Amino acid sequence: MILGNMDNSQPNITNQPAIILALDAMGGDSAPGCIIDGAALALKLMPAGREMRFLIFGDKGAITPHLSKHQALLARCELVHTTEKVLADDKPSVALRQRRGSSMRMALDAVAAGKAHCVVSAGNTGALMVLARAALKTLPGIDRPAIATIIPTRKQPLVMLDLGANVACDSGNLCQFARIGAVFAQRVLGVALPKVALLNIGVEELKGREEIREAAQLLRTDKALPGEFIGYVEGDDIGAGTADVIVCDGFTGNIALKTMEGTAKLLTDFLREAVKASLLAKFGMIFALPAFRRLYQRVDPRKYNGAMFLGLRGICVKSHGGTDAVGFASALQVAYELVEQRFNEHICRVFEQHSPAISGQEPTNQDV
Amino acid sequence: MILGNMDNSQPNITNQPAIILALDAMGGDSAPGCIIDGAALALKLMPAGREMRFLIFGDKGAITPHLSKHQALLARCELVHTTEKVLADDKPSVALRQRRGSSMRMALDAVAAGKAHCVVSAGNTGALMVLARAALKTLPGIDRPAIATIIPTRKQPLVMLDLGANVACDSGNLCQFARIGAVFAQRVLGVALPKVALLNIGVEELKGREEIREAAQLLRTDKALPGEFIGYVEGDDIGAGTADVIVCDGFTGNIALKTMEGTAKLLTDFLREAVKASLLAKFGMIFALPAFRRLYQRVDPRKYNGAMFLGLRGICVKSHGGTDAVGFASALQVAYELVEQRFNEHICRVFEQHSPAISGQEPTNQDV
Repeated sequence: MILGNMDNSQPNITNQPAIILALDAMGGDSAPGCIIDGAALALKLMPAGREMRFLIFGDKGAITPHLSKHQALLARCELVHTTEKVLADDKPSVALRQRRGSSMRMALDAVAAGKAHCVVSAGNTGALMVLARAALKTLPGIDRPAIATIIPTRKQPLVMLDLGANVACDSGNLCQFARIGAVFAQRVLGVALPKVALLNIGVEELKGREEIREAAQLLRTDKALPGEFIGYVEGDDIGAGTADVIVCDGFTGNIALKTMEGTAKLLTDFLREAVKASLLAKFGMIFALPAFRRLYQRVDPRKYNGAMFLGLRGICVKSHGGTDAVGFASALQVAYELVEQRFNEHICRVFEQHSPAISGQEPTNQDV
Repeated sequence: MILGNMDNSQPNITNQPAIILALDAMGGDSAPGCIIDGAALALKLMPAGREMRFLIFGDKGAITPHLSKHQALLARCELVHTTEKVLADDKPSVALRQRRGSSMRMALDAVAAGKAHCVVSAGNTGALMVLARAALKTLPGIDRPAIATIIPTRKQPLVMLDLGANVACDSGNLCQFARIGAVFAQRVLGVALPKVALLNIGVEELKGREEIREAAQLLRTDKALPGEFIGYVEGDDIGAGTADVIVCDGFTGNIALKTMEGTAKLLTDFLREAVKASLLAKFGMIFALPAFRRLYQRVDPRKYNGAMFLGLRGICVKSHGGTDAVGFASALQVAYELVEQRFNEHICRVFEQHSPAISGQEPTNQDV
């Protein structure tokens, strides 16, 4: 099943009626069970008139018992057998050299060869990033890919990038991420003119690191940016929803994202303990529970599962390794959305219109 | 009233029975009212047998009406009149050159001259950092001061530094901060052998920026470190309380701290909205309220008010500019504690015992 050769934006395969997702069925803490269950759930949640198909890579013996439970999925998938897989503690360099026949690498190669539109994996993040870069390469005009995710805020959700693909970035990399993020906000978050900001430690013009000040200067006059550059934002602006796109280097983004996760967990634990310690509070919570459930739905981390590797010649989504079927289905929906919205075509259009190109550092072995 | 000349660790003045705090009465959003009320409250909260006195710098006309309400404070303070002050939007360079007669500068000069043990200000952070560095200088063996604060965690509170004094740090600076933080954890948090960690984006040895990996190497063999170096921690370890001391550069620390604040605010707002939107939940909250109040007390930001500028030849504490009297009193208690615990003497002892010294970058104009 060859859908056509891939060019920059995959025009051949996007002309096909169904969107085909390549699944690394062997990555993640509960693989392959929750991968298969997640795919079945995503199928069930698909609105009528849209079609999702799967190319599943992994160990047939381990996958088949799970697959046989889902008739609808069985009718919409093709299973490609391999016993090799990327291990959770494989170094990216090991994954690159020694895991050529792994489920993760084969899923990526399927996208590179035009056999699938996108790849979704819950496996080793560092390995996936390096394998994706090797298999898919970056889009024209983009020097480094970035990891992005959607974050809930007081206003509407925002997209933040980079979250760890690049330990250090120069001003050119940051500007490229700003454009990629702005296209994402338009296509996926539905914001017509996204507010784009650089994450910094103050809002004054002279604050922060040199590459951030340089990036601000470039973005102020970047005619290709499909959004409005609003300058710097600080850490507390993430939750406040001051911007639709927040741009930073991968070190800073990773620290900020994990700090958010840790703080949310701390407060939830404190809340639980406070209620547990008081009989009156336990009684009161019987009445407050439905409201708290609605609150939880608003910030349910499974809804925001799916880190997207953006800037590559193919869509690649990383699901959290510890997620369940509901979370994995979310990651599949994100991937589907990116393909359906022809995300990469829009990226290419933005980068083509700009002349001279903004160029940034290319990846080094230090990264990931 | 001269208490003696200052040497490295202020031995002359710490022999005096009372601890004297120099107050910048004109800094902060509600100055001088909440500064004076905060001082009066701190006096009231002092345990018997400990004495706190104040040297208050600022506009006599504005201060006196507030001061006259507090008889106990009146008996324990001296007011030094000045109408000049550092403005909230003064650049540090302007504060340094043009605000020599300001309440902030005079309070710092009083500590430098041995007239007071420590200074507390709720004014412009950047200006305070630069003025403090100019007036007090760093302790021997320390190239750059750091901003530190106490952070609540699931276990016991931890100290984190630097939070914004230094945009970039080299490995030597980070090691110096690690030692300073470890002394703080011992003296103020009461941890006999503090667990010291570097904030990074992964726990593996090869992760992160070069200066962090170098710092890890130095700390593994640093015999002067009064604690146990446990390696790297990630953003979510802050709330989890994995370490007693978390060390990072000022850019990263500032992003992490503000992200924590923003996330806590976001979740609190969501919680409030969820309860407001449901009559049943409102009813239930009547019973749960006492438990929630206890929870709030556990994380009350006023309790954790007070960013400490550590590594200087004098104690300098920055209160949040928007705090109330309760918060300002907390900052005064932190300052008092640092003096009473002879924090700087202990720092000097740690840095003296190490040979050869760990040396780091000196400050540049880029910082703050």
